[in-house]
Amino acid sequence: MPKPFALPVKKKVDLSAIDPSDTGGILSKEEILEETLKLKEELQELQEMLVAGKKQAVLFVFQGMDCSGKDGVIKHVFSGLNPQGISSYSFKTPTEEESQHDFLWRAHTKTPALGQITTFNRSYYEDVLITRVHDQITDKVAKRRFKHINHFEELLNDNHTLVVKIFLHISKEFQLKKLKSRIEDPTKNWKFDPSDLEERKSWKQYRKHYEEVMEKCSSVSPWYVVASDHRWYRDYAVLSIVVEAMRSLKLKEPEPNPELITFLEQITNEN
Amino acid sequence: MPKPFALPVKKKVDLSAIDPSDTGGILSKEEILEETLKLKEELQELQEMLVAGKKQAVLFVFQGMDCSGKDGVIKHVFSGLNPQGISSYSFKTPTEEESQHDFLWRAHTKTPALGQITTFNRSYYEDVLITRVHDQITDKVAKRRFKHINHFEELLNDNHTLVVKIFLHISKEFQLKKLKSRIEDPTKNWKFDPSDLEERKSWKQYRKHYEEVMEKCSSVSPWYVVASDHRWYRDYAVLSIVVEAMRSLKLKEPEPNPELITFLEQITNEN
Repeated sequence: MPKPFALPVKKKVDLSAIDPSDTGGILSKEEILEETLKLKEELQELQEMLVAGKKQAVLFVFQGMDCSGKDGVIKHVFSGLNPQGISSYSFKTPTEEESQHDFLWRAHTKTPALGQITTFNRSYYEDVLITRVHDQITDKVAKRRFKHINHFEELLNDNHTLVVKIFLHISKEFQLKKLKSRIEDPTKNWKFDPSDLEERKSWKQYRKHYEEVMEKCSSVSPWYVVASDHRWYRDYAVLSIVVEAMRSLKLKEPEPNPELITFLEQITNEN
Repeated sequence: MPKPFALPVKKKVDLSAIDPSDTGGILSKEEILEETLKLKEELQELQEMLVAGKKQAVLFVFQGMDCSGKDGVIKHVFSGLNPQGISSYSFKTPTEEESQHDFLWRAHTKTPALGQITTFNRSYYEDVLITRVHDQITDKVAKRRFKHINHFEELLNDNHTLVVKIFLHISKEFQLKKLKSRIEDPTKNWKFDPSDLEERKSWKQYRKHYEEVMEKCSSVSPWYVVASDHRWYRDYAVLSIVVEAMRSLKLKEPEPNPELITFLEQITNEN
């Protein structure tokens, strides 16, 4: 995996020091076209082994500001997989029922079964992000929640579920460009949500809270910061991270079962 | 859509009169290669409109004997779609909790939200198939269940959810060949389930009950019988049915919203 994406665990991150328009030394989309096809093919093979083995699971959590491309990158990286082995969830404002439970409850009901991949478009991390920006929870509660998140990810880990967290890092200018195009291009109007403009005003606060989250919630499973102002680079970087994560499972072809041979006799003699 | 797949509604089906090795006059895989690519591309576009519009949903139910290729066809037809717009469920023996509810309960929790496609690998139809073969329910109960199924599909229909049921039709010889290969090929051993041999003994009973199900449960949404002894034809036929079903929704590009222009001023003046 290209090194620039990997964020060292437990080290304070300074997001302003990471250029959202970075392309890791890659000059153009064409340069990574062949590699992308190879990685996609490998991902399909890795998924098949994951499904067949039913011994491990992977949860990919996507976070990022509005317009950072969470939808787009999930579509780009994971389409092509067998839909029977992947589930995708998008977390919105909690429903009334969801609000009456602890903040991890609704996410827990959606974690992958063994053999499965799950993607989260937003996640329980919103409960230590948007809630803090809007002063819905105190710093003390936030600190408790960081602990709960680490414990939760440890629980999943113990159940052979790898959790990988990806932050799509964009500039404020990039978001402006995207918001404008959602307004100006009639075919994109349906994607525009006026509340995005409100959240945009809290850009700095979000950044600060993201930095704290990454510092406090990296002990069990890693965070990756992906420079996302260039869509082609973002897609390639995330694909690389995803494939590398799947490789780390050291998946094997399913074991043969030599005892099955006795059944052969049974069906051969059936008539 | 090639006519041979479409089963007329409310007419008694004679499955023995349908050749499982039929290929609808198509001579080889090569003949439909280009058309397959076109259909897959169209399916992606249709899914995008479905997701954007959030006004309709589609449920594809797959049924068929063991080894008929339910897994394979779902993988073939639906991989390539945006995983955020499709969910796939495989129904196994009911859990203890599921058994304590009516037979439609667990399926109902998995039906698609508006904007979504869902595939069922087996379904509530098992509750009028395997249960009858093993005399777990009486004919009287089965008849009540046919009614409940029709009412259930009517409910989904009223909520703008199209239900399409596909029966993968194979010969007993084809199943034998597949079972043997699962035993003889070590890489396929993990797919072999000894209980399949037991079910195979009830081939005729299954066929009879399938015929009754298709007769009694076609009033609201259609059944399609797909000749499935040739994998390439099965995949092509199902893809055709799926695309045709999506076309029938008459999906449109999402509506532009001219009022959004007022927001443009807001962001342009933000600094």
